[in-house]
Amino acid sequence: MLFERVAIVGVGLIGGSFALALKKAKACRHVVGVGRSAANLKVATERGVVDSIAPDAAAAARGADLVLLATPLAQFKTVFAQIGSSIGAGTLITDAGSTKQDVISAARDTLKQKIAQFVPSHPIAGAEHSGAAAANAELFRGRRVVLTPLAENSAASVQRITDAWSECGARVSSMRAQEHDAVLAAVSHLPHLIAFALVHEMAGRDNSAELFSYAAGGFRDFTRIASSHPEMWRDICMANRERVLNELSRFTDQLGEVKRLLEKSDAAALEKLFTQAREARGRWLAGEFDA
Amino acid sequence: MLFERVAIVGVGLIGGSFALALKKAKACRHVVGVGRSAANLKVATERGVVDSIAPDAAAAARGADLVLLATPLAQFKTVFAQIGSSIGAGTLITDAGSTKQDVISAARDTLKQKIAQFVPSHPIAGAEHSGAAAANAELFRGRRVVLTPLAENSAASVQRITDAWSECGARVSSMRAQEHDAVLAAVSHLPHLIAFALVHEMAGRDNSAELFSYAAGGFRDFTRIASSHPEMWRDICMANRERVLNELSRFTDQLGEVKRLLEKSDAAALEKLFTQAREARGRWLAGEFDA
Repeated sequence: MLFERVAIVGVGLIGGSFALALKKAKACRHVVGVGRSAANLKVATERGVVDSIAPDAAAAARGADLVLLATPLAQFKTVFAQIGSSIGAGTLITDAGSTKQDVISAARDTLKQKIAQFVPSHPIAGAEHSGAAAANAELFRGRRVVLTPLAENSAASVQRITDAWSECGARVSSMRAQEHDAVLAAVSHLPHLIAFALVHEMAGRDNSAELFSYAAGGFRDFTRIASSHPEMWRDICMANRERVLNELSRFTDQLGEVKRLLEKSDAAALEKLFTQAREARGRWLAGEFDA
Repeated sequence: MLFERVAIVGVGLIGGSFALALKKAKACRHVVGVGRSAANLKVATERGVVDSIAPDAAAAARGADLVLLATPLAQFKTVFAQIGSSIGAGTLITDAGSTKQDVISAARDTLKQKIAQFVPSHPIAGAEHSGAAAANAELFRGRRVVLTPLAENSAASVQRITDAWSECGARVSSMRAQEHDAVLAAVSHLPHLIAFALVHEMAGRDNSAELFSYAAGGFRDFTRIASSHPEMWRDICMANRERVLNELSRFTDQLGEVKRLLEKSDAAALEKLFTQAREARGRWLAGEFDA
């Protein structure tokens, strides 16, 4: 048994799936959940995602071996402050935040001398459905989880968090927080912004109903991430604002290049660009870039 | 038996699937195929997609009840010219082109007095795989096919083409060619360009291998259409150039608005935009805009 008692702050898709995966792996005995929505906690209880409910994060963390923060990012600082006051010396904290530098900064500001107990992590997994109802024990199987350990973390603490995610079936690796935030801005945050922007633009037109009625499978897949959780993505954009703006600029430049090729009817250059994109994606699908 | 002999010019994903669907529905007796790639025609023959192979489009169309043009768009004018010389008065022509105004213009220029025999169509279906190897009889089931009939078409001709696609399981409707091209520029051509551009930009970076190694399911779905056929999409972009440019401008404006919200850290407005996008997509998925 890896953990006796695990506290999940934010029993949504990610937090709930973490709980279910640990239970399935028999890696924890008891899961206590806390969250803003009583209705969601009811679902979590009924589905066996959590064994008990705590009134606040401080109460949930008391006596826990492990606390997972899985709320939208804007709540992290408050949650850190709450659990910082109630955890013992043996409690480890980790998180599922999609950005790392701001999370670490919030943790340092609030956990202070307990900062060594926090091992930052980011499970690169998700779905367009949210809440405890969407949680499932297999969400992290085969997915990457990135740890961005702190200088203060002991090797044993990092290993325990690695073990926790490994028990969920994830492939765990480490990188610097700064690099993490830059990489994720490119491969995750930018695509989400683009998908939200495209659907929003289309939805605002007079003939939006007609447009949507002709949208097909390609559009469905392309825009799937525009069904993601708005509050979560608001927080990610704000937390990683500089890097996301940088990615937006790069992408706008690339779109401008495509526009210039179209304007001068440079069919050969367009085909070359499409071919290079297709080939790169093909190499990715073939596993050439797998870690 | 709807057709005795159907000629497929371009036995790729779309042409091949049309042949297989008609055969499965017992709506045609013999399919003759023609194409640029001997290897692809060999696959088409081995898979039973075509019953015979013709040396060129004129030979394929000779004696056919129905000719389907399913090559990339840039070849249409040449194909129309070839089949125009060999078809009899009873032959109908249709196409699977993703744009309609340019196709109709090419048909008028070449078919001349036989223009009434051409009923333009566009099956809104596809996949990221190409060629006869990817063809399947169910590709059009439940999908929309848009006809953009000409003033010269007889009601009987339009009905026969409607029947052909209906036999493939498609939902057939009609609209003006101009409207078709505008709608598809928004819901199909723009998303393809964006996906190609995003993958191309990422593939060109020094750390592209690292970036791809952290890309997950959201990225995979978002970029699926960047694995589409480069030549086909080159031709679509050129054929619908003005409208695609217009869509690019609209989208760039929307991205600029998102950028401004980020720059001024307007979290509430960002969340509102994301929420509106998610809700619109939800209504679409729920079938609210279904024709």
